[in-house]
Amino acid sequence: MSTYKPAENIENNPRVKVVFDDIRETRGSDFINNMWYYIAFDEDLLEQTWADVKRVMATPSSIDPLTKEMLYLAVSIANSCSYCVHSHTAAARAKGLTDETHAELIKIVSLAAKTNHIANGLQIPIDDVFDLDKG
Amino acid sequence: MSTYKPAENIENNPRVKVVFDDIRETRGSDFINNMWYYIAFDEDLLEQTWADVKRVMATPSSIDPLTKEMLYLAVSIANSCSYCVHSHTAAARAKGLTDETHAELIKIVSLAAKTNHIANGLQIPIDDVFDLDKG
Amino acid sequence: MSTYKPAENIENNPRVKVVFDDIRETRGSDFINNMWYYIAFDEDLLEQTWADVKRVMATPSSIDPLTKEMLYLAVSIANSCSYCVHSHTAAARAKGLTDETHAELIKIVSLAAKTNHIANGLQIPIDDVFDLDKG
Amino acid sequence: MSTYKPAENIENNPRVKVVFDDIRETRGSDFINNMWYYIAFDEDLLEQTWADVKRVMATPSSIDPLTKEMLYLAVSIANSCSYCVHSHTAAARAKGLTDETHAELIKIVSLAAKTNHIANGLQIPIDDVFDLDKG
Amino acid sequence: MSTYKPAENIENNPRVKVVFDDIRETRGSDFINNMWYYIAFDEDLLEQTWADVKRVMATPSSIDPLTKEMLYLAVSIANSCSYCVHSHTAAARAKGLTDETHAELIKIVSLAAKTNHIANGLQIPIDDVFDLDKG
Amino acid sequence: MSTYKPAENIENNPRVKVVFDDIRETRGSDFINNMWYYIAFDEDLLEQTWADVKRVMATPSSIDPLTKEMLYLAVSIANSCSYCVHSHTAAARAKGLTDETHAELIKIVSLAAKTNHIANGLQIPIDDVFDLDKG
Repeated sequence: MSTYKPAENIENNPRVKVVFDDIRETRGSDFINNMWYYIAFDEDLLEQTWADVKRVMATPSSIDPLTKEMLYLAVSIANSCSYCVHSHTAAARAKGLTDETHAELIKIVSLAAKTNHIANGLQIPIDDVFDLDKG
Repeated sequence: MSTYKPAENIENNPRVKVVFDDIRETRGSDFINNMWYYIAFDEDLLEQTWADVKRVMATPSSIDPLTKEMLYLAVSIANSCSYCVHSHTAAARAKGLTDETHAELIKIVSLAAKTNHIANGLQIPIDDVFDLDKG
Repeated sequence: MSTYKPAENIENNPRVKVVFDDIRETRGSDFINNMWYYIAFDEDLLEQTWADVKRVMATPSSIDPLTKEMLYLAVSIANSCSYCVHSHTAAARAKGLTDETHAELIKIVSLAAKTNHIANGLQIPIDDVFDLDKG
Repeated sequence: MSTYKPAENIENNPRVKVVFDDIRETRGSDFINNMWYYIAFDEDLLEQTWADVKRVMATPSSIDPLTKEMLYLAVSIANSCSYCVHSHTAAARAKGLTDETHAELIKIVSLAAKTNHIANGLQIPIDDVFDLDKG
Repeated sequence: MSTYKPAENIENNPRVKVVFDDIRETRGSDFINNMWYYIAFDEDLLEQTWADVKRVMATPSSIDPLTKEMLYLAVSIANSCSYCVHSHTAAARAKGLTDETHAELIKIVSLAAKTNHIANGLQIPIDDVFDLDKG
Repeated sequence: MSTYKPAENIENNPRVKVVFDDIRETRGSDFINNMWYYIAFDEDLLEQTWADVKRVMATPSSIDPLTKEMLYLAVSIANSCSYCVHSHTAAARAKGLTDETHAELIKIVSLAAKTNHIANGLQIPIDDVFDLDKG
């Protein structure tokens, strides 16, 4: 159901090939998911998006890789991005997400949505202690 | 800027008092944030909401307490719930969120939003390997 | 916290005055809420918006006036429109919304948000019987 | 297009069977929609979600059953939950939603979205009379 | 995957035929996209929606037709409306959207989403100079 | 109402000063808005965000600067980012947005939201000609 059809043999484009090769090496897998094929019609979009994802998601930091994927998935659910929910569920599983933890993630995300709607619905004022401008 | 003004002395209501006491005991703190005062006009709403939050957020499980708060915060940001962003940022800090990890959380959440909009913008089709109905 | 400052004496503009008078007559009240002052800088925006609101919300139809306001409020909560939550909570109360029904509305809205996030989170496939293209 | 494939014969699990039987009895129908099959991989998620839905949606209260479904549907539309729009449109029809009222619902929901975006777009300040902290 | 199945021969309804003929004439094309078939079950919904779209999108104004479509598309992406992203991408292309500009649009939309989430995530206070109530 | 309080004299940090100086030079103005002060607690977040904004928004391209701001504003409205609506309305005005065009922008954004909710509400199926996988 795409609005764009990627060119065939898109890796003949050397700028695309450099990015795809780096994705394969970074992930240790030959598989390239559709995201990258579909944005490759614009080399700058492809290069910048991958640079962002690599820097934030594939660089060791104070948040472990599985937790990163879970945060990414939580935002993708809230933003109703069907493609992203699929790709980041798969990524989280590849990094060790179990059924038990997946269910817990869904419980937290859906509970947050529930209280988000309660707080927005009643327009609950922010406690002074939470407001660092007043604290 | 509230649409509702909580009754004074709301803890004179015994059903409210039971919940507030349990919140205090569970959290080990006398402070009750506005969320609970503002939903206490309906005892059932108060009791059920607290039961949900206690079960999901305050019961030991396969996700550690700080990560739970980070996931809650990520959803609250994506759902534009100002109250919830404030209360769950405070809760995450109370559970050990550092400036460094806070910045990382913001980077992940905002990157996810970026690629959510790219995927929705191009209506990228879901890879067959991500679709368990086809797999 | 507005991005626009309405002109003073905006009712000196005869096109604005016609709309404001109709709002007052339709609602049976002299009070004009900020929404209308802030969009009055463009007469066409004012006239068209009021025509829409009057036709949908103030014309007798198969949905009663209080239920209409509750539906409007439900959408405004989900869309995080703080102004709209305030104005439509006030409108619903003026049409008879009680504390009990207000609490129920909040329970339904927040439960819907919860299961919306569960369904989006697991990408639950649509049952064939729900899909009229297959039925 | 699911991210999860429900186990076959999931009702062999006695905790699942208890919930499914209660859904059938409460609804007076043998049909169980996908929502419940897909969350049944975690018994707690299944039990808690059904308990919420039963308490809020299937217990007599001050809002009639059709209006409840319409509110649920309105939120599901605003939250872009495709599955939920399908299931709650079907549920509303089963409770008497006519074409005429369906069209009205769509008119109210879409008008609310329109003025939500106007109010957010101009950041219209909340009238003092709507703000109970000032009232 | 629709929740409604349009009647066959819907143009036998004279009110529908008038609108469809005007759509064809305004657009200079015989093609009528699904949007109009699916809302034609309620003549008022059809007539009012087309009147809105025609007035805003098909009337010469200070914003050129391609830019209008790009703005429409940007909102549709942010609101996760899959149908609308498809129809307005097609409409933008018909009005001259090139691959280069399409990629730029996606870059702007996704960057906006990124900083939207940063600003909401940190609850950055509005600068006094941006607030016309203070200016 | 912030969740973070920027350090005083934050430009004593040389990495921050480099970015702030570049913002001032790029924009031809000494004014730095809150966005940059509030993200400066993490130099990487500051540097990367500014690099993105500068590359997309401040580099000449096929979309003119005012249209870019209008697209940014449209997304910020749909995503309910109050801060962003303020800052990008101000930026658009600085680049020539008139009252007339501002009103038109609001009309397009709010109309898009309306039809987004109609299409999502009726789950209108995508026309085959819009789907490049079928075309």
